[in-house]
Amino acid sequence: MQIIELHASVTESNDRDADALRAELKKRGVLLLNLMSSPGSGKTTLISRVIRDLQGQVRTAVLEADIASDTDARRIESLGAMSVQVHTDGMCHMDAGMTARGLAAMDLDGVGLAFLENVGNLICPAEFDTGAAKNVMILSVPEGDDKPLKYPLMFQTSDALVITKTDAMPYFTFDLDKAVLRARNLNPEIRIFPLSAKTGEGMDEFERWLLAELAAWRKNG
Amino acid sequence: MQIIELHASVTESNDRDADALRAELKKRGVLLLNLMSSPGSGKTTLISRVIRDLQGQVRTAVLEADIASDTDARRIESLGAMSVQVHTDGMCHMDAGMTARGLAAMDLDGVGLAFLENVGNLICPAEFDTGAAKNVMILSVPEGDDKPLKYPLMFQTSDALVITKTDAMPYFTFDLDKAVLRARNLNPEIRIFPLSAKTGEGMDEFERWLLAELAAWRKNG
Repeated sequence: MQIIELHASVTESNDRDADALRAELKKRGVLLLNLMSSPGSGKTTLISRVIRDLQGQVRTAVLEADIASDTDARRIESLGAMSVQVHTDGMCHMDAGMTARGLAAMDLDGVGLAFLENVGNLICPAEFDTGAAKNVMILSVPEGDDKPLKYPLMFQTSDALVITKTDAMPYFTFDLDKAVLRARNLNPEIRIFPLSAKTGEGMDEFERWLLAELAAWRKNG
Repeated sequence: MQIIELHASVTESNDRDADALRAELKKRGVLLLNLMSSPGSGKTTLISRVIRDLQGQVRTAVLEADIASDTDARRIESLGAMSVQVHTDGMCHMDAGMTARGLAAMDLDGVGLAFLENVGNLICPAEFDTGAAKNVMILSVPEGDDKPLKYPLMFQTSDALVITKTDAMPYFTFDLDKAVLRARNLNPEIRIFPLSAKTGEGMDEFERWLLAELAAWRKNG
């Protein structure tokens, strides 16, 4: 496992870099998913579960972005999947240039799904196109159903919303209907997947979506 | 309740603004606490509990900082406490100038404790002195005990660490000893308060600390 120290590229060129990365990944048949959430929402646990469940069906690579530490990349590697840890030089988001440099450190031949686990933050990551094919936001039940009211841009820029830790629902006052309604008010097209990576409940539907998106990505254009 | 739209002041002058605000609050006998955490860690629930528990003992004011919405300020006002909502113009932190402008919108005569509920984020808020007397970090049990490894600066700049939602401990794999050890490795002086604002367990010790800090703040200098 490698640790890469990154510095941000100039903001104006980010959209160009993002489009270039997306085109390259399209050519190679790699579906890059940009996972964004608060710290501790369960991104790494979700990815770990997907890797285990889809083993043998699709090859997976994971780019772990953090300010410090390499605990997440170690967890992913312990599952036998490919992972690179990037450090963002104190910054609270990843941009397209940083993502491209991180991915370049991995051998993507034969990879289908690539996950970018963005820095834990509901604000800045929503403002930067990373070059991903899809933006996926994760909201965990303990965080509360009011998050769409407070962080609207994150919900607006996401193609899918995964509501994690549903097994903890009896323990918290989280109104799923309210959360779904608030998210759809901001983004009527958003796909919503309530699930528990711990018990496995709801994983099927999310994984079917991932595989369908991968198939569509490889077919079109 | 007011909503104030704020824009950041020039960074270089922030330390000067912070010292000026601190001196003014000292003169007025107001202990300002800067609460920082991930989204959904339970800052508003913690403040609400403190307001209820200390009613009649100390007057409290709350400055709610968010990108959008006024849900938190409404919750605080429903308890009969003074609250102002500030919007940070998309920014993921509060600085001293923004804090001073928010506080100026409240009548602080007779107020003892003032809470700044910073934007939910473990990165940027740690980098800006708000003028608070004490920095208090909140980490909730569902977020996991690995957060000191990932967000070291936040733990280093905090005077106290409140570990919330301890009632949910049986539901999550959170090692309290490990969290405490990791926090102390970064900051040997940090005060640590595990508690549940829901059941009330551990609130006493935290509130005694708040009152002791307020007494010391009003006595010294």
